[in-house]
Amino acid sequence: MLRLVIPKGSLEAATLQLFAEADLAVQRSSEVDYRAVIDDARIDEVRILRPQEIPVYVAAGLFDLGIAGHDWVAERSADVVTLGELGYSKSSGHPVRIVVAVAADSPIQSLADFTRWDRPVRVSTEYLEITRRAFGEQGIKADISFSYGATEAKVPDIADCVVDLTETGRALRAAGLRIVDTLLESRTELIANPASAADPMKRRAMDQVLVLLQGTLEARGKVLVKLNVSEDRLAAVLGGLPSLRSPTISELAGGGYAVETVVQKNEINRLIPALKEQGATDILELALSKIVH
Amino acid sequence: MLRLVIPKGSLEAATLQLFAEADLAVQRSSEVDYRAVIDDARIDEVRILRPQEIPVYVAAGLFDLGIAGHDWVAERSADVVTLGELGYSKSSGHPVRIVVAVAADSPIQSLADFTRWDRPVRVSTEYLEITRRAFGEQGIKADISFSYGATEAKVPDIADCVVDLTETGRALRAAGLRIVDTLLESRTELIANPASAADPMKRRAMDQVLVLLQGTLEARGKVLVKLNVSEDRLAAVLGGLPSLRSPTISELAGGGYAVETVVQKNEINRLIPALKEQGATDILELALSKIVH
Amino acid sequence: MLRLVIPKGSLEAATLQLFAEADLAVQRSSEVDYRAVIDDARIDEVRILRPQEIPVYVAAGLFDLGIAGHDWVAERSADVVTLGELGYSKSSGHPVRIVVAVAADSPIQSLADFTRWDRPVRVSTEYLEITRRAFGEQGIKADISFSYGATEAKVPDIADCVVDLTETGRALRAAGLRIVDTLLESRTELIANPASAADPMKRRAMDQVLVLLQGTLEARGKVLVKLNVSEDRLAAVLGGLPSLRSPTISELAGGGYAVETVVQKNEINRLIPALKEQGATDILELALSKIVH
Amino acid sequence: MLRLVIPKGSLEAATLQLFAEADLAVQRSSEVDYRAVIDDARIDEVRILRPQEIPVYVAAGLFDLGIAGHDWVAERSADVVTLGELGYSKSSGHPVRIVVAVAADSPIQSLADFTRWDRPVRVSTEYLEITRRAFGEQGIKADISFSYGATEAKVPDIADCVVDLTETGRALRAAGLRIVDTLLESRTELIANPASAADPMKRRAMDQVLVLLQGTLEARGKVLVKLNVSEDRLAAVLGGLPSLRSPTISELAGGGYAVETVVQKNEINRLIPALKEQGATDILELALSKIVH
Amino acid sequence: MLRLVIPKGSLEAATLQLFAEADLAVQRSSEVDYRAVIDDARIDEVRILRPQEIPVYVAAGLFDLGIAGHDWVAERSADVVTLGELGYSKSSGHPVRIVVAVAADSPIQSLADFTRWDRPVRVSTEYLEITRRAFGEQGIKADISFSYGATEAKVPDIADCVVDLTETGRALRAAGLRIVDTLLESRTELIANPASAADPMKRRAMDQVLVLLQGTLEARGKVLVKLNVSEDRLAAVLGGLPSLRSPTISELAGGGYAVETVVQKNEINRLIPALKEQGATDILELALSKIVH
Amino acid sequence: MLRLVIPKGSLEAATLQLFAEADLAVQRSSEVDYRAVIDDARIDEVRILRPQEIPVYVAAGLFDLGIAGHDWVAERSADVVTLGELGYSKSSGHPVRIVVAVAADSPIQSLADFTRWDRPVRVSTEYLEITRRAFGEQGIKADISFSYGATEAKVPDIADCVVDLTETGRALRAAGLRIVDTLLESRTELIANPASAADPMKRRAMDQVLVLLQGTLEARGKVLVKLNVSEDRLAAVLGGLPSLRSPTISELAGGGYAVETVVQKNEINRLIPALKEQGATDILELALSKIVH
Repeated sequence: MLRLVIPKGSLEAATLQLFAEADLAVQRSSEVDYRAVIDDARIDEVRILRPQEIPVYVAAGLFDLGIAGHDWVAERSADVVTLGELGYSKSSGHPVRIVVAVAADSPIQSLADFTRWDRPVRVSTEYLEITRRAFGEQGIKADISFSYGATEAKVPDIADCVVDLTETGRALRAAGLRIVDTLLESRTELIANPASAADPMKRRAMDQVLVLLQGTLEARGKVLVKLNVSEDRLAAVLGGLPSLRSPTISELAGGGYAVETVVQKNEINRLIPALKEQGATDILELALSKIVH
Repeated sequence: MLRLVIPKGSLEAATLQLFAEADLAVQRSSEVDYRAVIDDARIDEVRILRPQEIPVYVAAGLFDLGIAGHDWVAERSADVVTLGELGYSKSSGHPVRIVVAVAADSPIQSLADFTRWDRPVRVSTEYLEITRRAFGEQGIKADISFSYGATEAKVPDIADCVVDLTETGRALRAAGLRIVDTLLESRTELIANPASAADPMKRRAMDQVLVLLQGTLEARGKVLVKLNVSEDRLAAVLGGLPSLRSPTISELAGGGYAVETVVQKNEINRLIPALKEQGATDILELALSKIVH
Repeated sequence: MLRLVIPKGSLEAATLQLFAEADLAVQRSSEVDYRAVIDDARIDEVRILRPQEIPVYVAAGLFDLGIAGHDWVAERSADVVTLGELGYSKSSGHPVRIVVAVAADSPIQSLADFTRWDRPVRVSTEYLEITRRAFGEQGIKADISFSYGATEAKVPDIADCVVDLTETGRALRAAGLRIVDTLLESRTELIANPASAADPMKRRAMDQVLVLLQGTLEARGKVLVKLNVSEDRLAAVLGGLPSLRSPTISELAGGGYAVETVVQKNEINRLIPALKEQGATDILELALSKIVH
Repeated sequence: MLRLVIPKGSLEAATLQLFAEADLAVQRSSEVDYRAVIDDARIDEVRILRPQEIPVYVAAGLFDLGIAGHDWVAERSADVVTLGELGYSKSSGHPVRIVVAVAADSPIQSLADFTRWDRPVRVSTEYLEITRRAFGEQGIKADISFSYGATEAKVPDIADCVVDLTETGRALRAAGLRIVDTLLESRTELIANPASAADPMKRRAMDQVLVLLQGTLEARGKVLVKLNVSEDRLAAVLGGLPSLRSPTISELAGGGYAVETVVQKNEINRLIPALKEQGATDILELALSKIVH
Repeated sequence: MLRLVIPKGSLEAATLQLFAEADLAVQRSSEVDYRAVIDDARIDEVRILRPQEIPVYVAAGLFDLGIAGHDWVAERSADVVTLGELGYSKSSGHPVRIVVAVAADSPIQSLADFTRWDRPVRVSTEYLEITRRAFGEQGIKADISFSYGATEAKVPDIADCVVDLTETGRALRAAGLRIVDTLLESRTELIANPASAADPMKRRAMDQVLVLLQGTLEARGKVLVKLNVSEDRLAAVLGGLPSLRSPTISELAGGGYAVETVVQKNEINRLIPALKEQGATDILELALSKIVH
Repeated sequence: MLRLVIPKGSLEAATLQLFAEADLAVQRSSEVDYRAVIDDARIDEVRILRPQEIPVYVAAGLFDLGIAGHDWVAERSADVVTLGELGYSKSSGHPVRIVVAVAADSPIQSLADFTRWDRPVRVSTEYLEITRRAFGEQGIKADISFSYGATEAKVPDIADCVVDLTETGRALRAAGLRIVDTLLESRTELIANPASAADPMKRRAMDQVLVLLQGTLEARGKVLVKLNVSEDRLAAVLGGLPSLRSPTISELAGGGYAVETVVQKNEINRLIPALKEQGATDILELALSKIVH
């Protein structure tokens, strides 16, 4: 029913991994690399294409549904519906940023500092539109040229600054640059063609795909904790549990209670010792594959 | 107690992986690669040998128990007892097939079409017996020669057709061949020497090994689903659950019920959104290591 | 709050893996390899240094807490507090040993046999102190020289025996040596500076770290087993369960009981078939991430 | 003296290999990847940048000298001087081509066939200018869009044809496309800024660099052949030698002559047997590092 | 003109390397792996097939020319013409051997010792014919079964001895076997179909291919040595040169002589110091690509 | 005749490569890694041991001949004869240095600056003796501790400075250190036991090995250049040649002269263009395997 497009390149591996964990494994036919299938009645066709082009194709109706970074939705001013954000990027669960960076030893401290220049700022970027808008809004005169890559290598000889995508800032720093401004924070999104999203049948399928993807992403950050506790310590232990989900409580054969709850992974290294101190015993932690509220 | 033989070669990695997951990890001594041990009182000795030879050795009583493809049990007409099928192959959970394949542009559409030939069909195969029987039953005159490998490369210069093993058909298609008939569908089996299988002590141990292997394989295709539901939606949610296993139901501390059940992995991407629509909340999915009915 | 030092080299990968599983992932900054951070309020600073030097640095108060093999605590006679043993080594969960090894065809059968020699025994070792003590206690005259590595290659030309670390003895055997005595059995330990361990705030944090590490190690060897059983077989099944943890018992919607318990992984391949024979059905096995008693 | 820019990406490895063989090894500083040095008095500075941008930077005087494909010189209409062609490409010594490709089963047989279409041809390409000119010259109405990559995957859904670079045509064929026209044949060139090339000092250095690069490339395709021959067969053997270079002839100590000459590598497998038949003996073949006429 | 078949598998890499060095590079089309081409007018077609089958196909006229081990020519009793031996094998320049091997601790010391057995010897081998002949000639009763691989792992449980191919004997020793007899020494050969070899045109092309391959192999073991020597030491130096090829002597501009000759690589480490002691100066050693006498 | 020891570890690969190119290939038996053989009558036995221990073993007469860095000869004050330097190190042809390094932001500028300190300098090093001597000579009070590795990571927390080996200084800089003094420049040496070196037979063999190793090293930096030149330009071309070796001049069949000479590789990129300008034609460059004067 749905035609889906997912990004080739830096997000590709993380996207395929997510779909596989969501039980929507993307199977590529060996012959034509850019075409793939998902063995699911809701998805008829899968294409793997450049992330820069995906918002345009979804807007044009070539696909119903796509995975895209918000950066390219904004850059291409694509008329698409954002169904939801997906909390993953190339190598982490954090959003990426489109930033302005200058040479580390440049006197420039923020984008606004360029307004004082009496010559056009030479900017190298893959984001022509976003750059044009940002520099225009501040009234900065700029000579913006399209970067075919290696953008960070162009300062200071070839450009005065770059507008580039970064996840951790490490590559920019390693190239001797300093970030002076953030133009856009970009998350990975599930986007839809407006007409497709208005079709109730298609929309229902889209929402189900979103549930599976977001349920998988949420499970990555959480674990299931099971513990035993005597009746007199039950209230104390329950009080110490974070309230992500109502805990499940059952009576134990040998007396006392078994309690089960879901907690954030990054709380677990504080929570487990605390629970133990409050009287919880036999604490077990299990990994989760998916969480849906 | 048991002497076990497992296949070297294309099934080797998948077999070692299965035994490890079944808590029957095969440990090879570094000195003699073909001998190994499993740290389990039921298994005295493990050998890793060519799959073509395993049925013959098990039939001859050199081993009590073996992992073999049904193709070689049939080809070697080995007198063994099949204790059970194991749903895995080289790269998937699907059975493999012994097929007849011809050049893609050949006029042959089925094995029977060869009956019209006025010269012997040149066949290249590793399965001399299976081929002889199949061609013989249809009255086809054939010049069958043993293939030492690269069977698919022999059509059309060296052979008119091949009888070869395939899992997906991809290698045959890539070599320009077309499958015209399937002579045998072959699953991986746990086979036993008839005398060993008739020994009650040994048979009991064999059945326990089978339980562990099949329990592991079954767990690969299923997940544990836990969910919360209010009392008024309980019946609806239970009605929507597939009936693989009676669901476990417990009362929640904060009211409502916690339900737990096992479902097929390939249903999960339809089931989770459906459960959510029926009122289930806090749906969790957990991976399983083993399932035994 | 705590300054932690973990070992570089042969224990490094296993240690980083353990910390990651304990939700204490060690993140190295890309610039200075030997410095790292753990995103946890209890740990301020992490250094990755040679295992031979760790006990000395912890004793000197350069670090509050360290991971070290007991071998180097003993060799360096370091004044540290051992908070607990951690059951892992380079490639297994077993302790390593410091052994005396001679040429496989040497007449020496035990360390004591050297007392009969009328010339000093040439010993090559990285453990000068441990060797001095052991040979001294037996009254053996020895010419002990520091080995910069490849210790096992020095017998018989360069040394009469070696005192070396071994996990499985395989490398020594492969080099043509035979082990004749064990001077020390060494486990990986969590060690603390005595003053830091006497500080109640620091000690509490140290104990919590120990709980997380030991909980993770314990989970590696165990699994969670869930099963269903009819009322009349309940007692039999419960009787057959090992008593690591009180089993959790709940009533099933369709009658009968659901039972849940934790068992040793190396018992599971005997337990599951036994439970099935006693009437348990729908037996499930799940992996555990952490266990805390 | 010279500022040099060489291409990052598909030509990078082959270019670095060529410079190394020409004794102009490019040494990258570890800190900033895009900057490098060559230990040679004639070359002050080396940058490694995207091939698409190199002609523009050389034309703008940011660099004196650059390695570029002719395709991007043409696409960017860059005002540069071509000092010479360098006979190498990504994986061979052959030129690459910018071609028009359509779906293999399309009725289109040549670019001109598009003139009959009553709707604009959808073209996907990285070469906007070259495409505009070629389609314009033939009066074809086209909707040309910039391809960010994976160009060959866009036919037929997203584009009717592509204008793409190819070395062997293999990737296009593998993607199910058929080449219908060649718009440009492109060789790797050594290009210079016009002002730099007009400076006699710089021009002399540029020409010397060209001599080294071309000398290395020429040596790849040739070998040195040495042979002995008696006086009476000398004329016959000399007559059979290709005339790439005057052969060197010396008298042998034991009578007869030693002859030495350079021949094409792809002739050698015919020439050596022929020389032997004409009476040459002790034929030796040696590899060459550089040839300069 | 010629149809050539070269071996897939253990000899494959060494064969492709040899052809490439002989300027007869084998280029495989990416689509069908077993078909290849050589860009040479004398060779129309190249196939890469199992070495066991090559002699049979050449005898049958499916190919004019093939590379085969003598072992399979003998085993298959193939009616082919051996044009020449090629001194290379899987990993060296030495011939391989078909040997009889028994368990290292077996009392058997030679093949003849089996004549005393009162039961048939169980033999596992890929060489059924060679084994049958060798055991038959000595009057040994044998139960010979075809080995699908891992032959060395079958002693002593499954076979009493094996007849297997070995280059260094290392794999057999590592498997705990001891070689007791050599049935055949096998070199790699260039074989031809008898009818093709009788065709003068084809035979001339075959001989030329043989010259190139043998010239390349010979060059691997030799180097070109150049040296200078004063007139009074000339005779002494010439006397010390091995006589593989008449040395070339030229007068030097500054007086004295330049001498050039070809020597065995394994003599060079003794020859160079000796030449220096006899008065040779400026000794140079150069690698050779091909030598043809 | 000679017992040889070569270094394991950082110099190992470069040493094995050198011996192989010198036609003294080191062949390791697969069973005992530290023992090897060279197929040469002059060398009976080869051992591969830690570089720190080699000077001591050679001095003690366990070996006749060894490859060692001068650093360890000095550190261990070993009584050995240095036969010659070998111009190679881990990754280049340059010597390594033992340096004193401090934190990049330390006020210390030279070793002498430490004399002003009123507390002992904490030094971490693998070179206890060299450090003791150097600090002692300058009257610096130091607390020198043995570093088991990762020396550069110890500044500033654990040590005030390090005494460490460096080839390029890169690893020290990357660890945030600054070199303030060089205590020793160390080249790789061929060292001999004094008694062995005094034995005329052994000494002759040692000198021959030295000739082969040094001849190979020298050839790495040079190439053979051949060129043609007309009679009237001969003097000019000869005048422009560097005088490493008397050029060989022969008359050409077609008139003019052929000239052949050896030149430094790092001069070639200036020499070839210069020779061409002076009238040399058909300039050829060939690689050399060995040079012996």
